[in-house]
Amino acid sequence: MSEANQRIVFVDIPKGMPGPESFRLEPAPRSEPAEGEIRVRAILFSLDPYMRGRMTGRKTYVAPFEPGHPLAGYGIGQVVDSRAAGFSPGDLVVSPALKFQSASTGPARGFAKIATREFPLSYHVGVLGMPGLTAYVGLLDIGGPKSGESVFVSAAASTVGALVGQIAKLKGCRVAGSVGSEAKRRYCVDELGFDDCLDYRAAERLDQAVAQVCPGGIDVYFENVGGPLLDAVLKYINVGARIALCGMISQYNLERPEPIYNLIALLAKRACIQGFIITDHEQRRPAFLADMTAWLRAGKIRYREKVFEGFESVPEAFRSMLSGGHLGKTIVRVAADPD
Amino acid sequence: MSEANQRIVFVDIPKGMPGPESFRLEPAPRSEPAEGEIRVRAILFSLDPYMRGRMTGRKTYVAPFEPGHPLAGYGIGQVVDSRAAGFSPGDLVVSPALKFQSASTGPARGFAKIATREFPLSYHVGVLGMPGLTAYVGLLDIGGPKSGESVFVSAAASTVGALVGQIAKLKGCRVAGSVGSEAKRRYCVDELGFDDCLDYRAAERLDQAVAQVCPGGIDVYFENVGGPLLDAVLKYINVGARIALCGMISQYNLERPEPIYNLIALLAKRACIQGFIITDHEQRRPAFLADMTAWLRAGKIRYREKVFEGFESVPEAFRSMLSGGHLGKTIVRVAADPD
Repeated sequence: MSEANQRIVFVDIPKGMPGPESFRLEPAPRSEPAEGEIRVRAILFSLDPYMRGRMTGRKTYVAPFEPGHPLAGYGIGQVVDSRAAGFSPGDLVVSPALKFQSASTGPARGFAKIATREFPLSYHVGVLGMPGLTAYVGLLDIGGPKSGESVFVSAAASTVGALVGQIAKLKGCRVAGSVGSEAKRRYCVDELGFDDCLDYRAAERLDQAVAQVCPGGIDVYFENVGGPLLDAVLKYINVGARIALCGMISQYNLERPEPIYNLIALLAKRACIQGFIITDHEQRRPAFLADMTAWLRAGKIRYREKVFEGFESVPEAFRSMLSGGHLGKTIVRVAADPD
Repeated sequence: MSEANQRIVFVDIPKGMPGPESFRLEPAPRSEPAEGEIRVRAILFSLDPYMRGRMTGRKTYVAPFEPGHPLAGYGIGQVVDSRAAGFSPGDLVVSPALKFQSASTGPARGFAKIATREFPLSYHVGVLGMPGLTAYVGLLDIGGPKSGESVFVSAAASTVGALVGQIAKLKGCRVAGSVGSEAKRRYCVDELGFDDCLDYRAAERLDQAVAQVCPGGIDVYFENVGGPLLDAVLKYINVGARIALCGMISQYNLERPEPIYNLIALLAKRACIQGFIITDHEQRRPAFLADMTAWLRAGKIRYREKVFEGFESVPEAFRSMLSGGHLGKTIVRVAADPD
């Protein structure tokens, strides 16, 4: 990996799936920390589906990436210079808005110190970070599953989906999921302990496939995907069902969203769809961290990563993440973990 | 009005809007009350939009009407014979499942006695009955509006819609609505005190019309209509918006429901759509009756009825109700109120 200060710049709003032309590798300017700032050498970055939503030029719940400016997202680094109280060179830090560059300088309040090396550093942007908190809050607080209820999760082999399914099992639910390949289907059933799982690419009729893996109907649906799968699920929700709307990854690359026809089911079934954004739920982090570290220690949660190497890999990693091209949390590593 | 025992029978599942061929007037059989039963002479019936849902042959949240059997719904009558404790001839009663026939016999537990003549009898199937409770629970419990918030209601001149708008005003909200004629628009603004109202039939673009009458966005949407209006509203909901899904009257006569494209707004806005069915909320009736009678006495709620006369009027009344052909609660009167 290069020692030079590099960065990945967002080039322009893509149509459909972002390709290599959406990103540019270029030298990064260097700046010294001002009072209250720290300089951080990047170690690894997380790629997450919500980042596609920042490439539309429209303000949603996060500001759009600006063309010509570096990508930014969840990342981990090491402090190399500090003019901020409480931060010293050598500290390991995580940020929700780390610029995709070799080193960057910014206000210390944008960073949190990583207190423990008990787990791999990368876990702090994955199972112990935003995706973990998303699964925990979305399932338990928004979905509110009770023991014995039927939980269905889309993108079940994704970072969030895999955690949702496993937490639901720990809470005594029957769990089924939807994925896009036979390998992922087996991963969910054989490795993660799902009761059943469908491969939507192999399904002749999506609604029948949902009915088949959820024979008792659906009490809680954790939605990552949107589109026709949501429409199929609506046909099989039970009375009082809760749909936790976490994402609609199938829709992010479309010019026009796909239609939904079966919303009237919400009426007959007194059901709800509740959208949520994880940054609204920061107060749940302590409970989440206590539970999740305990589950990890006890071997009750399985967790995989797919590591891409170097800034050069960002376009490929991004495409692979959005298209479901690999198993495991998408990590771009630009430096080795320090000792 | 005829003295003979007549009834209105549901003929068969209509395609689209139910026409005269969907109903048949015929002589009704007579039966004497058994132990625990009462015989009730019908005075008036309520026609409500949910009844269309019972004409599809599919079980939804109420059993479908059976071809060849009488229609049934909310109705008011007078006891003429009783073999049930607590009921005497002359008692005025209301039932959620009164057969559309001149007189009928059934278990007393299907009836509630009307304790007060302070208000017109018909109010007990309207502003003080199911539609009133629906507006009250749907707005206050499901929608949860706070003073100063923006409330939007579809079918705003309907029985439920008009009450939703007025209750929201009493709670300090800014209220706008959607209706299907200029006369209804004026009714909402001039008579019911809405802040603004759109006529969807006159709107060139529905989404622009919604934006115009809700300049500050929408915090609570009380949904009676479904279809393109819901899609338009989704574009203008505020962060944390609540959509109380009470009905989708625009969809009931369609072979296939209309598509919804903008559900992704629920995500960015952390909003929810919650379906509800009023029969789940019986425990709120005492609070509702206390508030609503106080509001009526104080002249704070305006309420209109459209009375159709005789069983012969049922097909016309039903069509007029479903198509928005008149202002006010739809009542079919088959006998005069007793003194």
